[in-house]
Order: sequence, then C-alpha cells, then structure tokens
Amino acid sequence: MQFHLNGFEPGDPEIFHPEDRYNAPADKGPLPSEVDVLIVGCGPAGLTLAAQLSAFPDIRTCIVDQRSGPLLRGQADGIACRTMEMFHAFGFAERVMRESYWVNETSFWKPDDLKRENIIRSGRIDDTEDGLSEFPHVILNQARVQDFFLDVMRKSPARLEPHYSRRLIDLATDPTASDYPVTARLERLDPSHEGEIEIIRARYVVGCDGARSTVRKSIGRALHGDSANHAWGVMDVLAVTNFPDIRLKALIQSAGEGSIVLIPREGGYMVRIYVELDKLNENERVASRNITVDRLIAAVQRILHPHTFEVKEVAWWSVYEIGQRLTDKFDDAPRERLPHVFIAGDACHTHSPKAGQGMNVSMQDGFNLGWKLAAVLQGRSRPELLHSYSAERQTIAKELIDFDREWSAMLSAPLKSPDDPDGEGVEPAEVQKYFVRSGRYTAGTATRYTPSVLTGEATHQHLAKGLTIGTRFHSAPVIRLVDAKPVQLGHCAKADGRWRIYAFAGKDDHAQPSSRLRALCDFLADSPNSPVRRHTPAGADIDSVIDIRAVFQQAHRTLAIETMPAFLLPRKGRYGLCDYEKMFCPDLKNGHDVFEMRGIDREQGCTVVVRPDQYIAHVLPLDGYTELSAFFDGFMLRQS
Amino acid sequence: MQFHLNGFEPGDPEIFHPEDRYNAPADKGPLPSEVDVLIVGCGPAGLTLAAQLSAFPDIRTCIVDQRSGPLLRGQADGIACRTMEMFHAFGFAERVMRESYWVNETSFWKPDDLKRENIIRSGRIDDTEDGLSEFPHVILNQARVQDFFLDVMRKSPARLEPHYSRRLIDLATDPTASDYPVTARLERLDPSHEGEIEIIRARYVVGCDGARSTVRKSIGRALHGDSANHAWGVMDVLAVTNFPDIRLKALIQSAGEGSIVLIPREGGYMVRIYVELDKLNENERVASRNITVDRLIAAVQRILHPHTFEVKEVAWWSVYEIGQRLTDKFDDAPRERLPHVFIAGDACHTHSPKAGQGMNVSMQDGFNLGWKLAAVLQGRSRPELLHSYSAERQTIAKELIDFDREWSAMLSAPLKSPDDPDGEGVEPAEVQKYFVRSGRYTAGTATRYTPSVLTGEATHQHLAKGLTIGTRFHSAPVIRLVDAKPVQLGHCAKADGRWRIYAFAGKDDHAQPSSRLRALCDFLADSPNSPVRRHTPAGADIDSVIDIRAVFQQAHRTLAIETMPAFLLPRKGRYGLCDYEKMFCPDLKNGHDVFEMRGIDREQGCTVVVRPDQYIAHVLPLDGYTELSAFFDGFMLRQS
Repeated sequence: MQFHLNGFEPGDPEIFHPEDRYNAPADKGPLPSEVDVLIVGCGPAGLTLAAQLSAFPDIRTCIVDQRSGPLLRGQADGIACRTMEMFHAFGFAERVMRESYWVNETSFWKPDDLKRENIIRSGRIDDTEDGLSEFPHVILNQARVQDFFLDVMRKSPARLEPHYSRRLIDLATDPTASDYPVTARLERLDPSHEGEIEIIRARYVVGCDGARSTVRKSIGRALHGDSANHAWGVMDVLAVTNFPDIRLKALIQSAGEGSIVLIPREGGYMVRIYVELDKLNENERVASRNITVDRLIAAVQRILHPHTFEVKEVAWWSVYEIGQRLTDKFDDAPRERLPHVFIAGDACHTHSPKAGQGMNVSMQDGFNLGWKLAAVLQGRSRPELLHSYSAERQTIAKELIDFDREWSAMLSAPLKSPDDPDGEGVEPAEVQKYFVRSGRYTAGTATRYTPSVLTGEATHQHLAKGLTIGTRFHSAPVIRLVDAKPVQLGHCAKADGRWRIYAFAGKDDHAQPSSRLRALCDFLADSPNSPVRRHTPAGADIDSVIDIRAVFQQAHRTLAIETMPAFLLPRKGRYGLCDYEKMFCPDLKNGHDVFEMRGIDREQGCTVVVRPDQYIAHVLPLDGYTELSAFFDGFMLRQS
Repeated sequence: MQFHLNGFEPGDPEIFHPEDRYNAPADKGPLPSEVDVLIVGCGPAGLTLAAQLSAFPDIRTCIVDQRSGPLLRGQADGIACRTMEMFHAFGFAERVMRESYWVNETSFWKPDDLKRENIIRSGRIDDTEDGLSEFPHVILNQARVQDFFLDVMRKSPARLEPHYSRRLIDLATDPTASDYPVTARLERLDPSHEGEIEIIRARYVVGCDGARSTVRKSIGRALHGDSANHAWGVMDVLAVTNFPDIRLKALIQSAGEGSIVLIPREGGYMVRIYVELDKLNENERVASRNITVDRLIAAVQRILHPHTFEVKEVAWWSVYEIGQRLTDKFDDAPRERLPHVFIAGDACHTHSPKAGQGMNVSMQDGFNLGWKLAAVLQGRSRPELLHSYSAERQTIAKELIDFDREWSAMLSAPLKSPDDPDGEGVEPAEVQKYFVRSGRYTAGTATRYTPSVLTGEATHQHLAKGLTIGTRFHSAPVIRLVDAKPVQLGHCAKADGRWRIYAFAGKDDHAQPSSRLRALCDFLADSPNSPVRRHTPAGADIDSVIDIRAVFQQAHRTLAIETMPAFLLPRKGRYGLCDYEKMFCPDLKNGHDVFEMRGIDREQGCTVVVRPDQYIAHVLPLDGYTELSAFFDGFMLRQS
C-alpha cells in the first residue's frame, strides 16, 4: 500500500478522506465505582492487557488515559516477528502485514576510507534469518497498532473502550480487604468536567503509565539505572534524497558527524531517522538544550554526505537522552503476600528506542499478565499464579536493558580510524557482526522462561528438539485433516486465555484402537485424573480451558476422519455441533514436514503443552499422564 | 476462523455481539436530480461497478436498491480464484481469505455397486490445479462479499452509499440530448415516504436489477433460452452428521434419489446443500409446488443414506428451477449509436447456481464496465469504447450458459446402472472427469477476449508464452528491487482505472545507457509519440493514466537503484516525492523465476500491456514503440 504521498495523515489509510478517519471518542460518562481490573495508560502494554481481558464478558475492566483520545502519531514503530505472532492471536496480523513496511534487509554504511567525509555501503544482509517465524519483521506507527487493539476491544465480548482525559492521582491498597483491595483516585481533565475527582475500587490495578508512572511511585518502586548523557533526535519525515538505501533499514556511521539509524516507514514515502546529537553533561537533561528539528535535519545532512537530503514535511519529531533503567519488581507484593498492583511496559523498563524493542517487550508484558489475571478472576487458577508475572517479566526486562546498553554504546561510540588501528573506537564491521548475532533476540524469539510452576523441566525435551520449553511455540505449516486446508499449526492459538496441547502422534499411529494417541485421548476424555475433566467447568465446551490438537505423520488423504476418537471431534455449543478442526497432517506435497522441522521424535511422538500467551510450558511423552495432570494441578483449580 | 457454532448470525463475525453487527442504513434523503451514472440494484454486479466508480471523486454515481438495507443472508457463495484476484485490486482479498471456507479438494460419491441404496466415495481430487492463481477458490456468503464492497465505497474518494427502498418504475432515453440522455422514475418504498415518485436524470444507467430486470425491459431486451423443468432446492444449515466429507466440497449421486452438491461454508460449522427435487411439467414454475424446507431435508437424508443427517438450524433456503437464459445484447444501442443504458449480471444471464459461476461472472461484468465508464466520463477515452462492454461480456455469458447447460444436465441425469451398461444415463466417473476438465473455466481464468480495439493480435505472443493476450494477467512472485520485499507482480494492479505496462528486460539489460529497457523509458518519457505523454493530463502524476513497471532478470542485490532511469523513479504529488516501487526482480532465492514461470523470452524481453480490469491487452517487443502508441491511440484521447 502506498500513502502519505501528499503529507502525513493519521488514521486508517484505506479511508480516502483524512477527516473521515478520526472521530473524537464519545464521553463514556463517569468511571464505574468498582471493577475487577483498572488499567492506567493506553499505551502498548495497557492496550494489550485490555484487549486480552476484553475477551471475557464476565470480567469488568476499566482502562483510563490522560490523553483526550487515541494516539495519532509518533512514538514506537518496530514490530518484531514474535509480536506479529501475538497479533495473529488477537486477529489483526493480516491487517498489519498489509499496511506496514517489511524489513527484509538491513544495510550498513561507514566512512569511505579513501575520503573519510563520505559514507559508503559496507554491507547488506537479510534482516531476519530464514525460518525464524512465519511472519516478517515489520514497521508500523504505534498509533496504528493501538488502533487495532482498540478495534479488538470494541468488537469484543466486553465491548471495552477507554475512559480518556483521566489522570491518576494516587492509589491506596488495603491487602486485608477481601473484595476490592485497591482504591484509586483520578482527576478528570476534559474541559467540561475539569478537576472533578473520581474514586474507583478495583481487585487489581495495572500501571501501564509510562516512565514517570504514578502507579509505580504509589507502590514505592523506582526505576534504577544509568543516567543519560547522550542526546539523540528522532523524526518521521517526507524527504527527497539521492541516498540509495532510503527504503532499506540502514545503520549509518560517519567519520566525525555521528550515527544514524534509518527506518523506512509504511506507505512507501515516509522515513524515520534516529540521529545522534550532543554529548550531555552529567545530570543534564536534553530538554535544556532547546534542540530544534532543524538541528536534527542538519545533522542528518552532514552524516549522509555526499548524499542530498531535503525534508519536505516533518510528521513527528522528538529528542531524548539514552538511558537504561529498570524496576526491581513489577508488583506491589513481597513474596509472602499476594500482589494486587502491577506495573508493565515503560513503567518498569526504559531504554533507547533504536533496537526497536520497547513496544514489543511492553506488549509481551501485557500479554503475560492478561491471561493470568483472567484465570484468577474466573476462578480457574489460584491467585498465587500472579507472582509469576513479575518473576518472568522482570528477568526478560533485565536482559533487554543489558542488550540495549551494549547496542547503544556501539552506535554512539566513535569509529576506529584506519590511520590509528590501535586507537579507541569500534570497527564498522563489528557493528554488523553484533547485529547479526543479536538477530533472534531483536526478533523477540529468544525469550525463554526458566523452570517454574508454569514451565516444566527439560526431562523430555529430546522428544521435541525444536520446541524448546520456555520459548514461544514455533509454528510450522501443516494440512488440516478435515478439509485439506494449508494452515499454520501455531495459528490454533487465539488470545482467548485457553491452554493448548499439541499431541504429535508416533510413526504408525493413526489413532487406531491400540495406539498411544488414542490412549491419550481416552485418558483425557474419561480419566478422573484428566486435566481436561478436572479443570473444565461443568456445562462448558470440552475445549474451553484446555484445547487439544492432534498432529499425525501420515499424508492427509490416507487418514479417515470417521475412524478418529470422538475426543478429537468434540460436540460443542447449544446444538452439539461437531468441531472438525482439531487434527492436522504434515504438508508433504510442499515439502513441509512439521515432525522434521521441529525435531519431533518420530517413533514416540510427544505432547507439547502451550500457555495462553503462546509459550511452551512442557514437553512430555504421549503417555506421561501423571506428569501432565500434576503440571496443571500446580496452578489450576479443580472444577469438579 | 470459527463462528456460527450457536446459530447463524449475519454480519461481521469478528464483532462478538450480533446486535452490534448491523446498523440500519441512515436515510440518505432524496435522490440527486442529475448524476453521471445511475446503477439500479445492489447485487454483485451493481456493487462491483459502484465500488469501481467510487474511486473517482469527480464522477457522480447513484446506486439504488429495492431492499431496505444490505443483504444479510443467503444467495450466492462461490468465489473463484479469478474473483479473488479482482478482490485484491479492490483491497479486500485478505479479509475474504481470512473469513471464508477454502475449497482445497472436491470429493465424489456414487452408489455402492454392492448395495445400490448406499453411497460410497468414488474419488477425491484437488479442486484447483497448482499454480493456476496465487489465490485459492473460496466460499463466502454473498452478503459478506457485498459488505466488503460497501466498505470500499464508504471509504472511497466519492464516499458512495446506496439509496435503499427505491423501485425503478421506468426509463426514458433521449439519444439526442447532449447532457443527461436518460431519465429514470423511481418509487420510494420506505414507510415514511412510501409511494413518492422521484425523477433522476443520468448520463448512463446500468441495470444490475436481476433476472426480472426493469432496466432490461425498458430497453426492449429479453432473456432467451430454455424453459425450466427441473426443480432444485438449496439450503444453508447447521447439522449433525456422520457423513465424513461434510467439510469437503462433494458431488454426490445416489442410485435413485437424485443428486447433491455439498459446499462447506465459512466458520467451520455451516454447510450449503443443493439438492435435486422434482421434475416439473412443461411451463410449470417451482413456486406452484409449495415445497417446504422439510422436503429438502428429507431428500438430503435419502441421498446421503446410510449416513445420518440431522438439521439443527436452517439459516436460509430456497427452491428454483434450472434454466439457461441469455440476453442477446447488453446495452440499448445498435452499433451505429452510442449506448447509454447497460445491463449486467442476472439481468443478462441466468443459469443454475451449482457451478458457482453466477456471482463471479456478474462481478466481472461490473468490473469490465466500470473502468470504461470512468474513462469516458473523465474525458480519457472516446465514448465508442463503451460498445466493447456488450461485445466482450455477451460472448463470455454465452460460454457460461453453454457450460452450465452441460454441467446441469450431467448432475440431473440418471446414473447408468451397472446392471445395464448399455442403457441410458451418465457414468459417475464421467462427472469427475468433466469437473476436472472444466477446472480452469470454473476458476474464472479461462476468460479470453478476442482481438478488438482493446485486445491486440497475437503477432508477438511468443515473447510471453504464459501471458496470453486477452486473458487475465497471471501474477507471479517477484522481489521488489528497492526494499527486497517479496510481492506478487500482479498485485501492482489496483481497481483505480489505470493501465499497466510491465516491461520485462532482456538478459543482460539492467537499464544501462545502451539497453533496450532504457530506450523504452526514454521513449515513454520524452517522445511526442509516447502514450504516457499523449494521454496523461497536464499536472497529473506521470503514472496516473499508464503505470509502467520494470522487471529485471538479475538478482535484486546485483542491481543499483541509483543507476536506474529517472522514468522508473518518478517524482509525484505536491512534494515531488519519489515513487520507488516500480522495479522488480525474480525471487531466485525461493526458486521463483517470473521469466521462466510466464515464458518470457529471455533474450529479447517484452512489454505486456494490461487493462484496468487486469486483462492482457497486448504483448509487444520492448522497442515496439509504433505499435504501442497506435494501440493506446485506438481508444484513448490525447490530452496534450
């Protein structure tokens, strides 16, 4: 799609008239007095969490923001492959694929050794290694990402919409209260109600309110870390240039004028540029320098020399200082007490934007917390489960901070001069090497949770070598048995709070009466120890808590659906209609054998247990009934 | 996507609450008194045409329908590959891919020779041959297809929405009038204005008002053809069955109970069934039989024997008699006079629904007429161009009628009995063979326009053996040069009324100064005979009438964008920004070589001229300047 040719306009580019794209949000009236979850902040973390909770009609969620309406421009834009996988679960990956810029390759530029004031291309590489994800790495305005989440919320069972123009004043928590332990005071900012104070009581409060989080302060936590002493500028511009890589992501290091990270943007014309500015004095803030956008443009022009760069329109710009800061715990509770207040996203971790990680990690914070809150509020899990949020995400944030410190230092460091090979500085080739080495990390696929109540030990990891426990379930193409449709196995995952078990059948196992797969189905259907029977409420569809999918090794035309176990053809809903979409086969015709691709033990098969946020919780033998039951018993409540 | 589990609900299944899916259309007030185009009927033909015209802000279009609002259920559901290609040009192919059922395979059932009252599977085949289109054959409720067109219209430059509750009374044409030769009288049907008469004057009127078209009658034309004497029923149902192919398209022929065409539907649960009912007496209409849906269900149960089939909900059903009827001309004009009134879709051709062709052919009618009307109304083409609509589409409709007669006869004929091999009837194997043979036809890719002012002679066809003049441009995967994005070459086509020229470069041609591709660019950019210069209005973007794309044979990393002709990097819009998306390379890494796939002459290259409705108008040598200029001069007006 091409758009922004005649100037940047916010909103849905498929709507021709810009004035049709935006409607000021309706005044939703006063806040409710009591809710299950109060979310403070409509950024990526808050909206991911809100979208997840909106899937449950019985959970009362309220989300507030200081802004008077949706974000329209600027801020983050990098969307890692892993995030696209999550977007698919929320149902809008296709829309993002369509509208975004795809980062297919990255180029590297360095000073020309023959003429140091010029830059020349020193490398051009694939941005993402082949096969890392079924989705590309893409770039799209944060405002559009948020629009898609708002759309999910609006269409959801809970019909959730934000209350805008609300500023959180403070929180008070009474951990002894059994119903609504947290009380929040908020001030209205909309002109017709300005200054009015509202009180809302909540079971849980989540602060997604950014680096200066009021929620974080109210629970007595703080961001700790390096102070900033290097200023950078960022701008989204429409420009005319003869720089040839203007439509490739490019890392550009000049000899003496600093560095640029150049990111082409959606629509075919706009480009985002991060540009190195001044070294700051200790404790100096960038705001004090009164930097103008003309300063940014001039710096870009010097770095891109000998190429021209003429800016026609600035859609958005900002300046910031680099820093890496982290909160040591993401909730209000010591280990012996249950948490009631959480923080997510920039409220917990701030860092430089140039590795494109901030929005992605923040959304994963929200996705991690969302299903856990829902499970507890719906009585499916014990509230102790909520401890795992800070435990899991603080570790991930620490890795992010460490990575960002190294990457930022590399991009801000002076380049080694060819005249002084033993002097200070980095080699341009080192930057490219580091970028390649970090590829899986920046794609978001390196996240790995360590063993816990939610993450099993690697005892049976050899049964599925390519599906590492603790990492996200890596999808693969398969054929759906019933209708021969080519699909991605991982796309069974929807953001609906359900667990999934993929049962990979052994070699000659087509669910015949003597087979291990059929025995597993019999166990799950009939045994009093079956986690499906134990944890599914009476009257609910059999797959509403734990959803089982079977994957066979045979070509799909050789299997007969009428011989399959009834458990894999569950009858659902008010009519008892059959759900036919539980069984899959390898896509042999196109050479995609999921067993081969994911290192599944062909003789034995295995079960792979996947969390509602798409992370692999366990790998077990097909007959590992005891371990399977024990795993779910570790955090789920019995319903019968 | 799974939906309809607890009952059919019309509208967007991504909106959880059915009551949120539908808003009664706002009363748009009275009809305008004068328009460029009046479209009568909001079916597939009318909405395709309206969506096409809505792309042009200066064309005043009015579309009316007798209904009080959008269609909610029933009618057609088959979407051929070719139609998906058109949907991509309108921007909603991804949404249809996501929501629809994919017809991957078709199964065939016949009487069991050992026990004739039972049916057994006699075959199972790929529904569509590999490589026929980049899109699958899919099934989706006509109502949803129409929703997508309405969405395109609403978001378009013309912000077009239908006027509902309008019945056309009659038309009067004054061919001597220079401004608005057609006058239409319409009656309002909405309760608050019931019976009010409105007069609207139009430059052109298009009747998309179905088999009983008032527009057709008003121009003195009639449907001619076979009378119907065989009744069929059709129903969309939610059912419980042990018929194993319930999620595959299936052609089922019983020994003595008739035939079924079974089409699984979107959402995973619903199924459409066409079922053979009674032989009618001569001139008898099916309505006279008072057939109930229970009759349909009972017939299905008898044919599916020994399988059970228990209907839980009927979402929609109807009965119809088979007939093949055709109008001999699709406009109001004899050859010597310009046409002002056109008919499209069922107003021109009616036939049985079982080959899934009706909606598809009707939409192609609308797509064919749309760009021609726009070209004439915008002063880009002579009005004589409009004669080509009836000339091209009546021929296609004739082929459809002939095909449908043969296919319907086959499905309604008694089966040959194994006890009487020389007796009357068809062999079940014959049905399967005919189905396979007709695959390209039913996919919609067999349409081929014969030489005319719009379709060149095959003189240079050998330069692009796989891109047959007169057929639709068959897309292929390529890599976009500037950003290494994998794209489909054919997806350059948008429903924007523009012509496209694909210039395939010869072997060592990378647009260097001496090359034939650069010479073509120079000709197009600078020559007074250049069709681009001749036919592009002053002040418009250089690609706004004819859009040139270049395809190279080299791997994309070996080409340098900075050495390319300026003509392939056009400066556009109010800022003169560069459009970087005109150049492509083969996707060699994935083994997709567009030159190989489409039989392009590697030594010489060629130019392929493609119409706004995606049909190949011409294949010429890269230096066939004279023929290229003459071709566009044949129907386009010079702007300078």
